[in-house]
Amino acid sequence: MKIDIEIAQAAEVWPIERIAQAAGLQESEWEPYGRDKAKVSLAKERSQTERGKLILVTSINPTTAGEGKSTVAVGLADAIQATGKKTMLALREPSMGPVLGMKGGATGGGYAQVLPMADINLHFTGDFHAITSAQNSLAALIDNSIYQGNPLHLDPRRLLWPRVMDVNDRTLRHMVLGLGGPTSGVPHEGQFDITAASELMAILTLARDLEDMKARIKRIVVGYTYDKEPVTVAELGVGGAIATLLKDAIKPNLVQTINHTPTLIHGGPFANIAQGTNSVQATEAALRLADYVVTEAGFGADLGGEKFLDVKAPILGKTPDTIVIVATVRALKLHGGVAEKQLDQPDLPALERGLANLGQHIKSMQRYGVPLVVAINHFTSDTAEEIEAIKAYASAKGVPAVPADVWAAGGAGAKALAAEVVAATKRPGRFVPLYQPDDDLTTKLTKIVRDIYGGQGIELSTKAKRQLKTFKQYGWDQLPVIVAKTQYSLSDQPKALGAPTDFTIHVREFVPKLGAGFMVALTGSIMTMPGLPKVPAAKQIDIDNQGHISGLF
Amino acid sequence: MKIDIEIAQAAEVWPIERIAQAAGLQESEWEPYGRDKAKVSLAKERSQTERGKLILVTSINPTTAGEGKSTVAVGLADAIQATGKKTMLALREPSMGPVLGMKGGATGGGYAQVLPMADINLHFTGDFHAITSAQNSLAALIDNSIYQGNPLHLDPRRLLWPRVMDVNDRTLRHMVLGLGGPTSGVPHEGQFDITAASELMAILTLARDLEDMKARIKRIVVGYTYDKEPVTVAELGVGGAIATLLKDAIKPNLVQTINHTPTLIHGGPFANIAQGTNSVQATEAALRLADYVVTEAGFGADLGGEKFLDVKAPILGKTPDTIVIVATVRALKLHGGVAEKQLDQPDLPALERGLANLGQHIKSMQRYGVPLVVAINHFTSDTAEEIEAIKAYASAKGVPAVPADVWAAGGAGAKALAAEVVAATKRPGRFVPLYQPDDDLTTKLTKIVRDIYGGQGIELSTKAKRQLKTFKQYGWDQLPVIVAKTQYSLSDQPKALGAPTDFTIHVREFVPKLGAGFMVALTGSIMTMPGLPKVPAAKQIDIDNQGHISGLF
Repeated sequence: MKIDIEIAQAAEVWPIERIAQAAGLQESEWEPYGRDKAKVSLAKERSQTERGKLILVTSINPTTAGEGKSTVAVGLADAIQATGKKTMLALREPSMGPVLGMKGGATGGGYAQVLPMADINLHFTGDFHAITSAQNSLAALIDNSIYQGNPLHLDPRRLLWPRVMDVNDRTLRHMVLGLGGPTSGVPHEGQFDITAASELMAILTLARDLEDMKARIKRIVVGYTYDKEPVTVAELGVGGAIATLLKDAIKPNLVQTINHTPTLIHGGPFANIAQGTNSVQATEAALRLADYVVTEAGFGADLGGEKFLDVKAPILGKTPDTIVIVATVRALKLHGGVAEKQLDQPDLPALERGLANLGQHIKSMQRYGVPLVVAINHFTSDTAEEIEAIKAYASAKGVPAVPADVWAAGGAGAKALAAEVVAATKRPGRFVPLYQPDDDLTTKLTKIVRDIYGGQGIELSTKAKRQLKTFKQYGWDQLPVIVAKTQYSLSDQPKALGAPTDFTIHVREFVPKLGAGFMVALTGSIMTMPGLPKVPAAKQIDIDNQGHISGLF
Repeated sequence: MKIDIEIAQAAEVWPIERIAQAAGLQESEWEPYGRDKAKVSLAKERSQTERGKLILVTSINPTTAGEGKSTVAVGLADAIQATGKKTMLALREPSMGPVLGMKGGATGGGYAQVLPMADINLHFTGDFHAITSAQNSLAALIDNSIYQGNPLHLDPRRLLWPRVMDVNDRTLRHMVLGLGGPTSGVPHEGQFDITAASELMAILTLARDLEDMKARIKRIVVGYTYDKEPVTVAELGVGGAIATLLKDAIKPNLVQTINHTPTLIHGGPFANIAQGTNSVQATEAALRLADYVVTEAGFGADLGGEKFLDVKAPILGKTPDTIVIVATVRALKLHGGVAEKQLDQPDLPALERGLANLGQHIKSMQRYGVPLVVAINHFTSDTAEEIEAIKAYASAKGVPAVPADVWAAGGAGAKALAAEVVAATKRPGRFVPLYQPDDDLTTKLTKIVRDIYGGQGIELSTKAKRQLKTFKQYGWDQLPVIVAKTQYSLSDQPKALGAPTDFTIHVREFVPKLGAGFMVALTGSIMTMPGLPKVPAAKQIDIDNQGHISGLF
């Protein structure tokens, strides 16, 4: 059997001009990056045209078994496109750090892939690198201000601006920097996060345009004074320079699927520490260009799904016309308590226990009033009985569940799913927001925990309570909330699989992200800089003298 | 008067297709990056074609007055091109860090500029960022190997692989990282250099092709075992992955001058810690495509010039047909002892004292047997008498000196210089290498100090002496030498201007760069990570809602 990169390398890639034309772009609206990638900037007049239908692909709580959410999104879009409807994908950019670590890329798999696979998973068009250098340039400018007389009275013990790098490197999690004597800065503690966790990534993906991005950058709070007053980028006077470094990164990237469906891949914020969705600009561009737009959000419906609906949708000014929840027999069995090594064995009782996880996500997404479809991503070990059990379970909740075999068959494996999804977009929906903009942080959090996670409520640490008081003074107490939580469980305990109910979410600390425009609530132990495994994928990756890459999954 | 970025923004930029065609590239030999940049990979058959004439532009010891070496190189190429000869430039890529600090870019100035100016000075085609992430990925893989049981017995106190970032950030010069407990790595001291100082940058710019680059990467020594045995990337088993990350960065970038002369800009290694020249691949490509190729090397003839001739030329398999030494009246007056504020005042005696600096560079370059021309880069404050004094001085040493007014007039201001340079390329030269490949490190260093710097010899620190003994055991004692020395003086004392003679170069320490294939000799205090000034340029840089950039000089 061929592996992903071999399938990708054997696929026919159309010149990007042809994809740009198929997407309906004018010559002045795109710029090539190589022969198979482009940057897109829509003409102003496009904002007057009608928008297509929006399909959000999300999933049950992810497991180590893999749900294949991106793969389903790609296969679904290819299947809709194959029916002659003008279709586009709007996906996130993969982070390069993990590619050298333990997983493959984030460009789908098998015959439901986005091309050029290796480029997209490595440097792509440089967006992540631009964000990395903008974030680190700002860090250098902050430390330089402290070093050069500290006119803003910044307290080096209370900085809020980590440096970032698109590398899995646990050694960079905690450090003391500025050592080496008086000419090498002011010593202080510091940390690097992975680039996907950076506030600039969140800003770039939420910004409506360059103007909005620059305004958001100026609102970033980089730290506090010795008197605990917040200090912004506007006060540092370098917002224009940082925005300048992101002038190209803010433009969506155009590529194609194996079946040549035009695909915008843009922005890749983490779905735990940030909103986990592709950019507002790219989704908006796709909606103006296509009749059907398939997008996805990171991790499960409780993380990326909720954040799409509560944080991104209000900025986009559009909510999904249909939500697709991806589930697999294997992952549901894991949620039902089966050991990973036994997943290939049929086990109906375990599957039925695990269905509670799907049930909670159906319930939480139904709450928003958007038509739902469950996609059962097919694996060869699935039995007909198991598939039927999922269908019956979803059906009892009023939701159609449709198997799709996209890895092996691409769009052709998602015909039935596509038909169901297109039909669902035509059903009337009426969006019911989870919370009101002027709800306070505690109210917003409580609604998320009760209505989305199925838990009891929240418990704030002493520190978090103290922060809430201060934030009220600063006028930050009504921001949208981003819960930074494990993706593996509906609760904040990674091992609580299935659908726990009797749990409370413990908020350890809040992290204000004034530029992104949200408040992060840290629960449990959240990793913002991953590490490498014992045998990193880098040991398998190679390139021959002709430039042919191997070992990228 | 317009400033550089205004001139650049007002200039007509031809589509990159037109430049690629003018350069004689086949469609299959280039890929667009935006509408005005491209990556170039020459077809194999090109290596059978004849090579053009190579013109190396270097300078006297740089001063704060600015010599305009890149500006002269651009103007000279435009002037040769204007005579109908097929001409190309082969230049270094600017580092982005300093752009936010105190200086403008490195794309020439006035009407002798390379376009698109802002892009080239910021992220360009991502080469620096690819090198940054490759260097830091390797650092993460090294630390991960130590963390995961340390099978190679690497001593964390004896690592030779700094992390890098293309930012001026003194806070990153010295740190203790790996803090935070057992799951966050092994604590050790560390440092970040600016990306231009990285060994991967040196490797990429010296590699003949992808195969050579990968072989060099595998030879990198990343540190020592507890038994002080060197450990290579080959032993870590990740050379293929690191080479994969540089698959596009190794391709030269095509752009154009204001006068549309095709220009390859590729690689930007520092000229103190590394070889300071553009890439072998780009120079080779230009030589295969054009009849006249103008290239330059960093800082003065003692640093970039010497390194071009002794380190790059043997790999390129071609030595320059003419060397141009750039001098200015102002810089020579500074070398003659005039204070910076008085430079606009005529001062013939100071100029005549300062000419000794030019004299030493003429002498050292003449030693190689290559025809020389002195270019006098014109400033409005220059008097006719001062210009004549330079001409007379050079003429007495058998070297023509020709004024050029390239900032204000572009190629039209370098007609006479171009005529002199083209004539010089036709004069017979016979290259005499400075040292033999099998000379030992001490011999090589002594020859550089005596014949190039005009000094007495070298003095090794106790540490450097001890290192030489060890290196002999490892078989590293016959590598080419890169002297890391201040650019401001022929000696290792930045304030010793003019042409000091009674000096010794003090070698503090050697740094082996087995991948790059040279030994760095550190003299004096060499900065591998610059800092930002009190009022960084970032405060002036801005972008408006239409994407129009201001404040980049």
